[in-house]
Amino acid sequence: MKKSNVDILLNQLGAWLQGTGEYSDIVISSRIRFARNLKGFPFYHWASDKKREEVYFKVKEAIGNIPDFQNGIWMDMVELNELDRYFLLERHLISKELTEKGAHKASLIGDREIVSVMVNEEDHIRLQVLESGLSLLQAIDIARRIDNELAQKLDYAFSYEWGYLTACPTNTGTGLRASVMLHLPLLVLTKQITNVINTIAKLSFTTRGFYGEGTEASGNFFQISNQVTLGRSEEEIVENLLKVISQVINYERSAREKFYKQEKLSLEDQVFRSYGMLKNSRVVTSKEAIELLSNLRMGIDLGIIDIDIKQMNELFLLIQPAHLQKLEGRKLNSKERDIKRAELIRNRIK
Amino acid sequence: MKKSNVDILLNQLGAWLQGTGEYSDIVISSRIRFARNLKGFPFYHWASDKKREEVYFKVKEAIGNIPDFQNGIWMDMVELNELDRYFLLERHLISKELTEKGAHKASLIGDREIVSVMVNEEDHIRLQVLESGLSLLQAIDIARRIDNELAQKLDYAFSYEWGYLTACPTNTGTGLRASVMLHLPLLVLTKQITNVINTIAKLSFTTRGFYGEGTEASGNFFQISNQVTLGRSEEEIVENLLKVISQVINYERSAREKFYKQEKLSLEDQVFRSYGMLKNSRVVTSKEAIELLSNLRMGIDLGIIDIDIKQMNELFLLIQPAHLQKLEGRKLNSKERDIKRAELIRNRIK
Repeated sequence: MKKSNVDILLNQLGAWLQGTGEYSDIVISSRIRFARNLKGFPFYHWASDKKREEVYFKVKEAIGNIPDFQNGIWMDMVELNELDRYFLLERHLISKELTEKGAHKASLIGDREIVSVMVNEEDHIRLQVLESGLSLLQAIDIARRIDNELAQKLDYAFSYEWGYLTACPTNTGTGLRASVMLHLPLLVLTKQITNVINTIAKLSFTTRGFYGEGTEASGNFFQISNQVTLGRSEEEIVENLLKVISQVINYERSAREKFYKQEKLSLEDQVFRSYGMLKNSRVVTSKEAIELLSNLRMGIDLGIIDIDIKQMNELFLLIQPAHLQKLEGRKLNSKERDIKRAELIRNRIK
Repeated sequence: MKKSNVDILLNQLGAWLQGTGEYSDIVISSRIRFARNLKGFPFYHWASDKKREEVYFKVKEAIGNIPDFQNGIWMDMVELNELDRYFLLERHLISKELTEKGAHKASLIGDREIVSVMVNEEDHIRLQVLESGLSLLQAIDIARRIDNELAQKLDYAFSYEWGYLTACPTNTGTGLRASVMLHLPLLVLTKQITNVINTIAKLSFTTRGFYGEGTEASGNFFQISNQVTLGRSEEEIVENLLKVISQVINYERSAREKFYKQEKLSLEDQVFRSYGMLKNSRVVTSKEAIELLSNLRMGIDLGIIDIDIKQMNELFLLIQPAHLQKLEGRKLNSKERDIKRAELIRNRIK
């Protein structure tokens, strides 16, 4: 485990954006997150700085010996400037909570950004596994292995009645949040998406946007995750989510087939126009860029246009404000970002 | 003078679209039209077919010897199908009136489409001179010369009190309509155009769209012409129009300079986006195509993008319904035209 500047990450693309894995034409990525706390210590928000520091050192020591993090990058939030913290947030490596002021917060990022840990988030430990395509089972295997290794070194706050105790009751129980990011352009286009989301909500699953909690769906990206963590086993949660996801994949796939047959020309028109705009615009907002890139991704998936999917995924990451500023090496105001964003897209799309 | 199929015109570009002449960055073309009728014959709409036929032969014979029409193409409307008639209408060579059913209507088109005559329109003779750029004086010289030659062979209906007598009283007097087609994207963008048009109307000039009488301005094209033909000399009419036009040119030019300085980036963005759309769309309506091409033309005039202006002008012509169908060699419905139009533009813009 090494301590380092976040700039190392700037020139790499996390494993979850490689466009590989099962159903990768529809499923961007799968994510498993465990929330854990240390026995005998108050939750972060109720703890004194002294207690927070103790938690910090305990966790850091325990994690240091886990093979998955041998080449991990340790980052103390207090040592990062705002831009770097937002950069990590945009990469889905830390949460909004962790970017905010507070003592002894840290993040540890493993090889290829697959595994990461937040220390002193609202829970003492937030372990995340993030993989490309539909790979929840693979992700939970990794998460469990690391969790078991940590459990041997740390005394978790656990109740036989409630399960893992967490700062927020919505996480109590398994402490598990399983989520899958989907790209559903045809369910949006054919206006079936509202029905799908409503049905998912009734089954106690939540739908969010690409850019995480509290964000609206944009660019036809939808992140579906379990709401309930209590009273169900990890297996049940993951299996139920997989059932829902497989239904949604079927809906999207059949919408793609049907609609593309019926409206081939208008879809091609939309895809190529988006390409034309992305290759030519001089100023582009984040919202518009995401929509146009989403159309292009749809074009790739439908075989309308031939562009490297990794390149596309990378752009979804790079067009975000902190990434643009890191790439440029300086602060940019909103207008400057729109110009830089347009330039970046023009140059990167082949 | 030869009789021929309209297809000869398909592969040529009228002189008025060459993008030459004075102020050709703002002024597309200048047009002079004389309305004349033969003494002793009722106006076309009140005449019997017998009388119409007499007029037809008188005019045809008189015109046949005029040098300007030595290689002219004579077309009897009755021998043309609807598509061919609309094709001539789109080229600004005949009027809507002439496309409509009626005996002994004809059109004679001179070299490079500069000079043309309609026979048995609402007036017996409609002589038109159409030139590129701001060239009203040159155009009226040509029109007068031909008119004089015709006057030697034909007895015009003329009153010393009223001047030339015409079917519609708005043309009585000089029988002159002088008009100038302008491209005013920056007056539109800066919202000064309404003021300009209102002022022009107060000075007794009319503003119309690119596609002639009864059409709305589209693609930032405005055709300004005199309303009054009675009680003023030809010289006065043309001089007054030239004064107004030169004001409008100044307004547009200063708007271009000011706005381009202030909003360089957004103008460039608009121009390049339009280029991207035109180069990539698969379906495009006439209205949208005209708007996008207008943006591109603005880009050429502002030095933002380097595209041949003749090529652009030709596209404004070719994207019209009858032209598309003539190019394709068959009838096309609206949807088919939108596809063909997109294809044509993609292939023609370099």
